[in-house]
Order: sequence, then structure tokens, then C-alpha cells
Amino acid sequence: MSATQDLAQHIAAIKADALPDWVFHEAKRTLVNILAVSISAQNSAPVRALTAWADAEGAKPRATVVGSGLRTSPTIAALVNGYMAHLQDYDDTHFPTVLHPTAPVWPAVLALAEEIGASGRDALAAFAIGAEVACRISMSIHPWHYDAGWHITGTAGVFGAAAAAGWLLKLTPDQFANALAVGGTQAAGVREVFGSDTKAMHPAKAASNGLQAATLAQAGFTGPDDIIGGRRGFWAVLSVAGHDEAALNSDFGKHWELANNGLKPYANGVVSHPLQDGVIKLRNEHSLTADQVAGIKVHCHPLVLELMNRPEPRRALEGKFSFQHCAAAALVDGAGHDAQFTDAKVTDPSISALRAKVTAEIESSYGEDEVRVVITLNDGSSLETKVDHATGSPQNPMSDEALEAKYTALVGAEFTEAHTNELLTAIWALDGAADVTQVTKLMTAKGG
Amino acid sequence: MSATQDLAQHIAAIKADALPDWVFHEAKRTLVNILAVSISAQNSAPVRALTAWADAEGAKPRATVVGSGLRTSPTIAALVNGYMAHLQDYDDTHFPTVLHPTAPVWPAVLALAEEIGASGRDALAAFAIGAEVACRISMSIHPWHYDAGWHITGTAGVFGAAAAAGWLLKLTPDQFANALAVGGTQAAGVREVFGSDTKAMHPAKAASNGLQAATLAQAGFTGPDDIIGGRRGFWAVLSVAGHDEAALNSDFGKHWELANNGLKPYANGVVSHPLQDGVIKLRNEHSLTADQVAGIKVHCHPLVLELMNRPEPRRALEGKFSFQHCAAAALVDGAGHDAQFTDAKVTDPSISALRAKVTAEIESSYGEDEVRVVITLNDGSSLETKVDHATGSPQNPMSDEALEAKYTALVGAEFTEAHTNELLTAIWALDGAADVTQVTKLMTAKGG
Repeated sequence: MSATQDLAQHIAAIKADALPDWVFHEAKRTLVNILAVSISAQNSAPVRALTAWADAEGAKPRATVVGSGLRTSPTIAALVNGYMAHLQDYDDTHFPTVLHPTAPVWPAVLALAEEIGASGRDALAAFAIGAEVACRISMSIHPWHYDAGWHITGTAGVFGAAAAAGWLLKLTPDQFANALAVGGTQAAGVREVFGSDTKAMHPAKAASNGLQAATLAQAGFTGPDDIIGGRRGFWAVLSVAGHDEAALNSDFGKHWELANNGLKPYANGVVSHPLQDGVIKLRNEHSLTADQVAGIKVHCHPLVLELMNRPEPRRALEGKFSFQHCAAAALVDGAGHDAQFTDAKVTDPSISALRAKVTAEIESSYGEDEVRVVITLNDGSSLETKVDHATGSPQNPMSDEALEAKYTALVGAEFTEAHTNELLTAIWALDGAADVTQVTKLMTAKGG
Repeated sequence: MSATQDLAQHIAAIKADALPDWVFHEAKRTLVNILAVSISAQNSAPVRALTAWADAEGAKPRATVVGSGLRTSPTIAALVNGYMAHLQDYDDTHFPTVLHPTAPVWPAVLALAEEIGASGRDALAAFAIGAEVACRISMSIHPWHYDAGWHITGTAGVFGAAAAAGWLLKLTPDQFANALAVGGTQAAGVREVFGSDTKAMHPAKAASNGLQAATLAQAGFTGPDDIIGGRRGFWAVLSVAGHDEAALNSDFGKHWELANNGLKPYANGVVSHPLQDGVIKLRNEHSLTADQVAGIKVHCHPLVLELMNRPEPRRALEGKFSFQHCAAAALVDGAGHDAQFTDAKVTDPSISALRAKVTAEIESSYGEDEVRVVITLNDGSSLETKVDHATGSPQNPMSDEALEAKYTALVGAEFTEAHTNELLTAIWALDGAADVTQVTKLMTAKGG
């Protein structure tokens, strides 16, 4: 049996009841997280442009777009929602690879579940299965594929979306292999587009193409036997330098990679997350304000200086790549949301004054998710804390409380307090819901 | 200036008046050809499945699907029409590479031209420009890219579709660079799917994604400066073994690659086209019938035996890879359309009896498009002909008359004679038409 057929058998065989409870809970957490960052992105220029395009398509209303509430086809809703989910780079990260598994998968699941009236529990299971497939594909090609310049979230993502949608559609193993072929041959996305509006098109298209692939496979579309392992298939063509076949299918359905998926606590690259953790911890424990601070010293892994040593950032995106800015904004605002990385925030005089007081020292023995922060106060005293594993790493997952705080900060800036709370309640109750419509209604601006 | 920006400048600068007359004529020929094979494919199972998907999308009717006449959005029409254009592998071939330039480009042009009311002349120019870009991209990566397992029609095709659509939308150079980025990062398609329903999805998605990319770029979507030549761009990631930068931009707008694009005279691989030419020539000159024939001997390039030596094909697709079947069907029917490669035709006793009389002898000095055919008759006499260059090669392009014969055979099997002729007349008159609606109306089953 080929690698693809083996995977197809595995996916087709899984029943929702076989998923552990913690997987359902984690699936709900990823939905809280992804809807928070999606709603937060609703008014950005590229989201408006993409939504205008979707609106002009004028498709029959069967699925809902986050934020705007546009009703359109499932493939188009998956496209726009996949885009919104990744635009701020604030979604989640599968630590063994650098896949962002949620943005290509949840939008496909939500749109299809809304259309076919799937139960909340089935939607959660479909997401977990799709995320598992995306993670397995990623592990089978990492690090060779990413190092070659591919954006793994687009390429592995489309397999995950096809698997999740196919599972909701109850495809046969043969149909799954065909769905993976139709979707998998569309695997695309190069890292050259990082830093532009185009990057988030990768999970957007992955979600939409994967969903369409499952639909076409159900309608009888054929593909080759082994899109993944075939002589001219995904591994051979998109991961030339190597692949790990065992990672794809071993213990499938027994072990779940969502355990290694971290929700992002801050809307910037993962390298500075430990120091943001440390600064916020000291700030909150001691009710610190900027005017008390004489200096912030960060003892850290070498990568912090290599990738993020930018003492005087001038623009939003530069702020995301400045450990000095991350530390200063963390102390002033106690957060690292997208709001801490706007042009206005980066050029705020009070922030830049504090930024000048931030320094770093390399600790060669430290791990990438480890840091020691020392804050010296104007009265001569100093405060210190050690972070062994940053929030959002597998060893230190974001707590439900911290996730809710992130959610509330992001969604509360866009929706009323009551609306914000109602949506959160609906997501936490999803595993008992007859369908997903309470969530899809409340995830829109008019849904409250 | 980057490779992409250079290309963007070139595309933005071209005026329709700068195109030579022969380019307009060739653009019309490709449209005659592509609509013939598309209409011929209208009732196949995967076309029905894809059209049903498109119909379910229920998009606002702004563009027309070939055959069914479904009215839908331009992106969806481009998708289905791109699929139909390539399904039978009977479209055209850019000889310097193995790109099929028409299937990803014309469907994008037709759909957008229909929506915005572009003139026939502008539609033809947009096609020629898009085909030029697809061919240039292909030449810049051939043979490395195809040899690595990519289906160049999908990958280079999306750049062509984006360029063609962008030209109709009058994008600025910056917008063109963004359109090429949004489209180019979706470049996809592996050769593993050859021989399945999935292959034709490559030009289908190329057409649709390229058209959407141009639309989004016009709406302000940003991409990187150099999707083609950037460090993690198209060349670096999808053509690892090499690329030829000069092929992309040299003499752009002065030299036209449509000169090297051959329309396919037969619905099978190009290797056996010379012998089909020879057999049909002798058949027609001498009004031969199968019962007169004692033997058909083909003196040919070694590749014919290497790739197509299959004396007893059992199924449609096997017939396409049997030189014996190609020769026998050519003698009986005087043609090599899809109708000569059905299951029924391949298992027809009269055909298989003749097939047993077909032999080949290698001539090492012959070119791939060269052949000598000797037919021995039951009366002991023999007939012989030499083909120096097969029909459809750059040295021996299909004549307008032969193209019309192909068109009439394919379309005449689906539409009434009057309808068939009206559509042909409309295409030949397209350069003088105020818009493309006469063609888009007549290319549907109900349009006659």
C-alpha cells in the first residue's frame, strides 16, 4: 500500500469517539485563538480588498465570513477566513516544524460544517484530524522543505484542509486518496512573499483548495494512487533534499500533534516571546510603570540578537523585529498584540525613550525559549525573573485564562463586551452544540 | 531593477497596435483549436463534476462556461474552461519547452473580457501577451523544472494568466509585479497526476488564480519586489537545478513565441504524430481501406519504440500510447481525435486486426518529428511516403484548412452544422468585433 493510501485508510477509519477529551478541548482553544486574531484583522486593507472580491463573486449564501458577516459559498468563505486567520502572524505554531496548522484547516471545517449542518463535536473532530494530517505531512518533510524556501503552512496546509473536509463528507479511502491528490498537486507558497499582503494567501488558498478537493473527490474526480510518495509526487518534487516516511503514518490516531502546537501569546516572531513573558511578569507582579525604570537587561539565547537587534525601529513591521521594542511595549502595555506594533506605537516618544534603556547579553547555555530579565529601577533596586520555557511552547502552553485574556483584548476592541463574551461562550460550548451556527453567527460584527 | 519588475515594465508598456498581424491570426487559431477540444470534452465525467461544483457555487452571472453555458463569475468560468481545454491533451504545445500555453491563458482572457466588455482585438492581444509571458517563464526554467517533476503548464501558466488579465485591466508596472507575486506564489502542479482527472486542474487553477491575482493587485494587494528572481522566489524554489534569466526579458515585445507553438493534430503524445501524418496522407491520396492492406511499416526515430510499442492495447489510454493503434486508427478513420482512442475503438476487432499488421524499424538518423511510412497492399504493390516534419511542429504548422477540419470534426459531433459554422465564423471575425459576446454565446450548446 502506498504512503498516500495508508494515510487515506487512517483518516477514513477514525471515529470522533476515538479522540481524547483533551484533543477536543485543544481544538476549542485553537478556535478561540483563531477567531480572536481573525476578528482583530477585519478592518485591514487587504482583508477589505479580499472581502470585496468575495462579495463581487456573488455566490449563493451557504457559509459565513468572519467579521464582515458576508454570506457566500464554503470555498470562498474558507478563502477569506483563512486569510484573516494568518494575516497578523498571530495564530499558532507547531513547534516540531514551523507549520501554522490552524489557519488552513479551521476555515475549511467551519465553512463546510456550516453548510452541511455538522454537529459541533464533528466539526472539532474534523479540525483535529485535519490539523493532524497537516502536522504529519510537515514532519515528513521538515526541515528540508522549509529550508528550500517553501512556506510549509501553504503546502502542508492543503492536505490538512482536504483531510478535514473529506472526513466531514465521510469519504471512502479511495476518495480520500483522490482528495489528497487534487488538493496536494495544488500545494504552493514560497517564502519570498513574507512581509507582504500575499503571505496570508497561502493558508487562504490551502483552506479553499483543500475543501474543493474533497468535494470533487466525493463527486468522482480521480487522482493517482500516491500523490505523496509517488515518483513525481509531493515528496520527490517539493522536498528534494529528503523526507521521513515514518513520520507520516506511525501511530496515526493514537498520538496527536496538537500537543505540540503552541498558541502565540504575542503578535511577533517567537524568538522574543520569552523576554516578553519575563517583562510582563515583573510588570504585573510589581505594578511597574515606565517612569520607574532605569534599565531592562535581557539575558538570552544568541538568536535574539542575531534576528531582533533593532534599537531604533521606525515602522510597524520593524517593531516586530526589535527585541528592544518588544520589551518596552511589554512593560508599558503589558501585552504584545498587534496594537503594540502599529506605526503609531513604534514612533511613540514614551516607548522609544524606554526602548533606549533595553539591552541584551548572550547566554550561550540558554535554550531558544529561555530568558532571564533584570529590571533596574530609578531607586537603585532591581527586580529579576527567570523564564525556563516561553508561554506557548509545548512545555508551557498558554493557559485558558491567558488565552481568554488575549481573546478579550483582541475581540473586545472590535465587538461590544456582551457580544465578545457570547462568542467565547459559544466556542467553549461547541462540543455540545447541534451545529456550528451559533459560532458562525456570533463571529460576525452584526452577530451580537 | 529586478527580473520581475523588468517583466512588469515590459507587459505594462505593450500596446495592442504593436503586435504583428500574424500574432493576431495565430491568437485566433489557438482559440479555434481550444474551443474545439473544449466543446469535445463537454460531456466527460470530470467536466460534469466540475461544472456541477461551479453551478452549486451559484455565483453572480458575469462569464460563460464552454458547452454547458453555465453563467458564473469570471474566476469560476476560467477554472472550468481551463479544465475543459486541457482534459483530452489535445490543445497545443510550445516546442522549445513542453508548455501548453493556451489552456491556462485563453480561459482567463475570455472570462474577463466578457465581464468588462473588452474588444475582440484587445482580447486577442491580451491572450498573445499572456501566452508570451507563460512561454518566457517556461524558457527561463526549462529543462530543469520539468525534469524535476513539475507540470510546467500549471506553474508557468499562472504567470501567463495573471499577465493577460492584468493587461486587460490596464495595471501599472507596480500592480503587475504584485499580480505576478499573488499568482506566482500559487504556481503548482506535479507530474504524478498525469493520467488522471487531476492533470487538467493545473491549467484550470492557473487560469483562475492568475485572473484573481490581477484583480487583487488592482485592488491594492501587495507582494514582494521580485517573485521570480528573489532569494526565495520562483526560480530559487521551483527550478533549483538552474534558470536562464535572459530568456525571460530579452527582446520582449519584439519576438513572439507563438511562432513556436504547435496546434496538436492528434489527441495523443507528439511522438507518433509523424507516422499518423504519413498514414493519413497515403490513405487519402489512394483512398485506402483496411481490407486492401497487407502491412504498414514505419521507419522512425527510436523514441517511437521506446515510448509507444504496445501491440495489444486494451483501453483508451493505452491506445494513446500504442504506435500500432495510432497507425491503424489513422488508416481506418483518417484521423486521431479523441474518438479514435475510446475503449470501444481500441477493442474494435477490425482495428485490432489491422494493428497486428503494423511494424516499426528504427532509423537512428531520423529526427523526432520525421518518419517514412511504407504500406504494402494485398495485391503485392506498395505505397510509400516521407514526412520530414510532423504537422504541428514549428517547421510544419497545421494549416488553417487542417485546423478547420479538426474543429469541424470535434465541434460537429456536439453542435448542429449551422451552429458549428457560426462559431467558427465568429472566431475568425474576433479581431473586428466590438466585444467577445458573440463567441462566448456561440461556444455553448444552446448558443446556436
